[in-house]
Amino acid sequence: MYQFQCDYTGGCCPEILEKLVQTNPLELPGYCEDSLCAEAESLILKKAGLNKEEADVFWAASGTMANLSLLTTVMAANEAVLAADTAHIHTAEAGAIEFSGHKILTVRSKDGKILPESIERVCSNFEESDQVSRAHVCRPRAVYISFPTELGTIYSLEELKALSGVCKRHRLFLYIDGARLAYGLAASSDVELKELAECADAFYIGGTKCGALFGEAVVIKDRDVRDRFLGVLRMCGGLIAKGRTLGCSFKAFFEDDLYQRLGRSANEKAAKIRTAFEEVGVSFYSESQTNQLFPIVDEKLFNRLSEKIKFKVIRRTQEGQGILRLCTSWSTPDEAVQALVNLIKS
Amino acid sequence: MYQFQCDYTGGCCPEILEKLVQTNPLELPGYCEDSLCAEAESLILKKAGLNKEEADVFWAASGTMANLSLLTTVMAANEAVLAADTAHIHTAEAGAIEFSGHKILTVRSKDGKILPESIERVCSNFEESDQVSRAHVCRPRAVYISFPTELGTIYSLEELKALSGVCKRHRLFLYIDGARLAYGLAASSDVELKELAECADAFYIGGTKCGALFGEAVVIKDRDVRDRFLGVLRMCGGLIAKGRTLGCSFKAFFEDDLYQRLGRSANEKAAKIRTAFEEVGVSFYSESQTNQLFPIVDEKLFNRLSEKIKFKVIRRTQEGQGILRLCTSWSTPDEAVQALVNLIKS
Amino acid sequence: MYQFQCDYTGGCCPEILEKLVQTNPLELPGYCEDSLCAEAESLILKKAGLNKEEADVFWAASGTMANLSLLTTVMAANEAVLAADTAHIHTAEAGAIEFSGHKILTVRSKDGKILPESIERVCSNFEESDQVSRAHVCRPRAVYISFPTELGTIYSLEELKALSGVCKRHRLFLYIDGARLAYGLAASSDVELKELAECADAFYIGGTKCGALFGEAVVIKDRDVRDRFLGVLRMCGGLIAKGRTLGCSFKAFFEDDLYQRLGRSANEKAAKIRTAFEEVGVSFYSESQTNQLFPIVDEKLFNRLSEKIKFKVIRRTQEGQGILRLCTSWSTPDEAVQALVNLIKS
Amino acid sequence: MYQFQCDYTGGCCPEILEKLVQTNPLELPGYCEDSLCAEAESLILKKAGLNKEEADVFWAASGTMANLSLLTTVMAANEAVLAADTAHIHTAEAGAIEFSGHKILTVRSKDGKILPESIERVCSNFEESDQVSRAHVCRPRAVYISFPTELGTIYSLEELKALSGVCKRHRLFLYIDGARLAYGLAASSDVELKELAECADAFYIGGTKCGALFGEAVVIKDRDVRDRFLGVLRMCGGLIAKGRTLGCSFKAFFEDDLYQRLGRSANEKAAKIRTAFEEVGVSFYSESQTNQLFPIVDEKLFNRLSEKIKFKVIRRTQEGQGILRLCTSWSTPDEAVQALVNLIKS
Repeated sequence: MYQFQCDYTGGCCPEILEKLVQTNPLELPGYCEDSLCAEAESLILKKAGLNKEEADVFWAASGTMANLSLLTTVMAANEAVLAADTAHIHTAEAGAIEFSGHKILTVRSKDGKILPESIERVCSNFEESDQVSRAHVCRPRAVYISFPTELGTIYSLEELKALSGVCKRHRLFLYIDGARLAYGLAASSDVELKELAECADAFYIGGTKCGALFGEAVVIKDRDVRDRFLGVLRMCGGLIAKGRTLGCSFKAFFEDDLYQRLGRSANEKAAKIRTAFEEVGVSFYSESQTNQLFPIVDEKLFNRLSEKIKFKVIRRTQEGQGILRLCTSWSTPDEAVQALVNLIKS
Repeated sequence: MYQFQCDYTGGCCPEILEKLVQTNPLELPGYCEDSLCAEAESLILKKAGLNKEEADVFWAASGTMANLSLLTTVMAANEAVLAADTAHIHTAEAGAIEFSGHKILTVRSKDGKILPESIERVCSNFEESDQVSRAHVCRPRAVYISFPTELGTIYSLEELKALSGVCKRHRLFLYIDGARLAYGLAASSDVELKELAECADAFYIGGTKCGALFGEAVVIKDRDVRDRFLGVLRMCGGLIAKGRTLGCSFKAFFEDDLYQRLGRSANEKAAKIRTAFEEVGVSFYSESQTNQLFPIVDEKLFNRLSEKIKFKVIRRTQEGQGILRLCTSWSTPDEAVQALVNLIKS
Repeated sequence: MYQFQCDYTGGCCPEILEKLVQTNPLELPGYCEDSLCAEAESLILKKAGLNKEEADVFWAASGTMANLSLLTTVMAANEAVLAADTAHIHTAEAGAIEFSGHKILTVRSKDGKILPESIERVCSNFEESDQVSRAHVCRPRAVYISFPTELGTIYSLEELKALSGVCKRHRLFLYIDGARLAYGLAASSDVELKELAECADAFYIGGTKCGALFGEAVVIKDRDVRDRFLGVLRMCGGLIAKGRTLGCSFKAFFEDDLYQRLGRSANEKAAKIRTAFEEVGVSFYSESQTNQLFPIVDEKLFNRLSEKIKFKVIRRTQEGQGILRLCTSWSTPDEAVQALVNLIKS
Repeated sequence: MYQFQCDYTGGCCPEILEKLVQTNPLELPGYCEDSLCAEAESLILKKAGLNKEEADVFWAASGTMANLSLLTTVMAANEAVLAADTAHIHTAEAGAIEFSGHKILTVRSKDGKILPESIERVCSNFEESDQVSRAHVCRPRAVYISFPTELGTIYSLEELKALSGVCKRHRLFLYIDGARLAYGLAASSDVELKELAECADAFYIGGTKCGALFGEAVVIKDRDVRDRFLGVLRMCGGLIAKGRTLGCSFKAFFEDDLYQRLGRSANEKAAKIRTAFEEVGVSFYSESQTNQLFPIVDEKLFNRLSEKIKFKVIRRTQEGQGILRLCTSWSTPDEAVQALVNLIKS
């Protein structure tokens, strides 16, 4: 069976593994106070066009942990985060945000993307209410978006700027979940780390789903959030004693353009598969430009694929149709891609 | 400078590193559903004298995460956990238990250990109260102990059984934090994994502080808690996508007696240092039998040590005395131990 | 200005006021352990066809408090409550349920009512998932419905039984918010307190919006929830020291059929207003059968009403249309009703 | 049996009852937006020497609710409140603060009072730690004191100023729980509402235990907390729909000096009882100056008292001694006081 069910079936990419082996004997201080974390932070800040005055980089054990601890730091009691109804924090993180005491206000999304007017509407409603009416709802405080989205799509720079604008106007904290950022950056024609860093108040650079063993880099610009984040991260159980592992991994990612390369290579594999689907007339649930594909296949193709490859079923219709998700990653063998392409076309 | 400030200054032990490299190319399912986790679980259950009917093993990203998610699964609203006033969850986890909505009821401890009568007293008070008086406090639901304790001491089998007995009588869930379990088991003459598993309702086997890159193995016997734990762990952000890393590490720990060996070796290094302190008449804050030492040094020795080694200062008195904590681990070089011994004696 | 903006513009109904004055000099124990609470409990249990073995009655300071403390008692970590997207706990309680750490899973509703198949779908999806997929979402644990609903409609006995059935099949706790129960019971042809008590695992009988100064009676059948509720209520700040006030009020409600009479009288006033709207061709946003009306008025009528009466605006369209909410209650003067009718018809 | 077990055995004082009856027919807006609340706010602000620019008054359903919602508004994630180990929020509110996600850092107290140096020590420890050490604990954010304390004692103006000073130096929010404020103000020679308002950032004026049916007035000076409090109060279920009841009660309290009179009268009754105890050589657990007395009685007196009066047992020693709590209030009949005095002396 070929593995297309997710983008974390492999271990870590060889470049990271090599560095882990290399640095393993070093005796280093704990809790991300080591030189590897410091070097990785410098590299990231530089790529993001930020200096140490303007932002800090923190290290979280998982994506859910990054989201939970960041948003918990940002939101006060009775404050809410706005997110697409397809947002990972709403559909796939087991109620983490609510566990922290906060409501997610879902807004309609298109292809996984929030439109600025959706945010505008919620905020205007709130702002135009009198004091007592406001007290009956949650105060909008933050906006959560994913880059790329859960449906594999990406925001253009213009779209990001529009979101950033509406957030600034309504004093909302804009947070970007970059679980699959490598694929998003590689697919985008106008958004690089710099643009992301300009538009967002905080974002995380995904490690786990982009070729690291585990761990994510959380970049925060807001001064107050930076001051309080480490304590919250610790409180949530997400501060890693041997932070060096994360520092080492992200140093490898950003010392040269490994992160970008890993993203591009996975996107290219996905593109080949997409083309194969298109050639046999299969349509897609979303116009993904990245490493996740959401083909809508009929029963026959569903069954044929099931025999040889692993994928995730998003939904099945009563007629036997299936909306599937297939992922590629740095570790997807070319041979597996070819086998899948043949299977689709056969 | 020699590093004695904690037991996680090294990377992972070579045996684990080798396995990580070996298994890295494997394509495996995510979220701890892989064969490495399954093998590690089997090995652990076997050593603990348990079968798959009696217990499950789960994998958590960190010790705070293990404590947070386990206790959150166990406790309902308005329920509390009893712990020593020196307990890690009370003094060093940034309010994680309270973040989950629960109160820690601290009880007096001796050398880091809870006495059964302390538990007895809290429970009797509660049980003898009328319904309204009970409603004004938190219902005791769980007991948290550490093995070894935060002061390096260990419970004897008799002590563990006594605690287990009082917990059973009052329907309290007994949970053991084994962040440094390797050192505790290696130091004990009558407690092995089997005994721990008999006395506790759940416990975790520490990886991070005992030689793994990160991660802890949570062993749970209670059926209801087993059924709900994974969802809570995910909600807390502690479920690791590439669980294989943890499976691989713990497989290495328990395939032979590596875990025990790592503990013993660190304890032996600590013993040499302890002897040196004793020889120059230094007394200790606690009778640690494991890899942590708590010497009470005068100003002169404090200064001399400060020049060459890193340690943690627990407290300083006005007269310049210091209570220190020094840790050894698998990665402490013999040379560092010797240097420290010389320093003490000089 | 005549007051139709809500059903709590008056103080308490005269029958309750009289009893409060009468019982004021009594010296009674605190925290609902008094004879007035005991008597009120007996009366309620009797009307509900329950005995003291089968259920307890508790007293909460407000409706949000009743919902918060009851659902917090019922749900464990990572568990969710299903509710209509129009549910009071979702739209008007400022994130109380999320504050307690739990997610509300909204399901589509019709006229404010949940359909059994909506519950069925969520539960089947969950139950058919494997263990890891389950861990990524919240476990359905309770269902929240309102009687009458937020749109003034009421469930028929058949509908209630169907909901109760699906809840039992999926081991969901069925909880009914009876903030305006007096109006619902008065409007229903086949649901009385007995039927409610048969179908629900817990429900609350609204005081505040039905003629009391404040306070709600929470009826709970489940043994474990009864055992733990008082502590949770206290923890939430909802246990009232002078519970006697609530006991006294609900004794007045249920000593004879005052509760029913208050509901009926408000419904009759609402019916007169509804007829007037219908006569001038105004349609309604929902087919309310109780004391809340949701007429959809054009700009002209909107403005005419605005001059003389107070109401709540649910929403305004760009064309100037308005969906309004008008409420009657025991305290609405007949003169106000007549004035409003004249205004509509003029 | 005479009732000395608490200060809320009566209904409300006659002056409040009269106003409730008088204002009952008024049709008023809900949620404390009514004229009675506005008038009560003006009266309170005036007595406190504050204007509407400097502070707002809010209305909470209970004391636990006031504490929970105020502190939840003040504290961000990972922040803690310092309190005496005898503090009501620590010993008698069922874990409300922890439920909201926050830790109570208890400090040693004397006669129920916190010493400024205790606060100083906790804050210095925190401030002198490095960033990583800080991340392992909770950040001190607020200080909770009670006036009078849970042991009936009161802070002098000098003591209050010292606490206020240390709080300002360390940017801590000083919050005063005035559940029994009437008794405290009546007993103090130098603290009136003005002084309290000068020293505290927020405080609440107790209604329930001082003669109202229920409800407390929360006075807040901090601008940000004022802006967010109402939403948090609603979220906690503590915003009362018929806030008029609270407005009416506090208007009665502060229209003339009723609040002070009620306090003084209860204190005088307590003084008579204290004198009687002293005359027969009974000593006290605390030097209470207010309406609560804590005599330490021998077994004989314990039994004699038990026959005729109700009191609360704080603790019993093995020798049969008992530390009792006896309370007086506006509703304690002179006859009961005399009977108790006779009983003590007999």
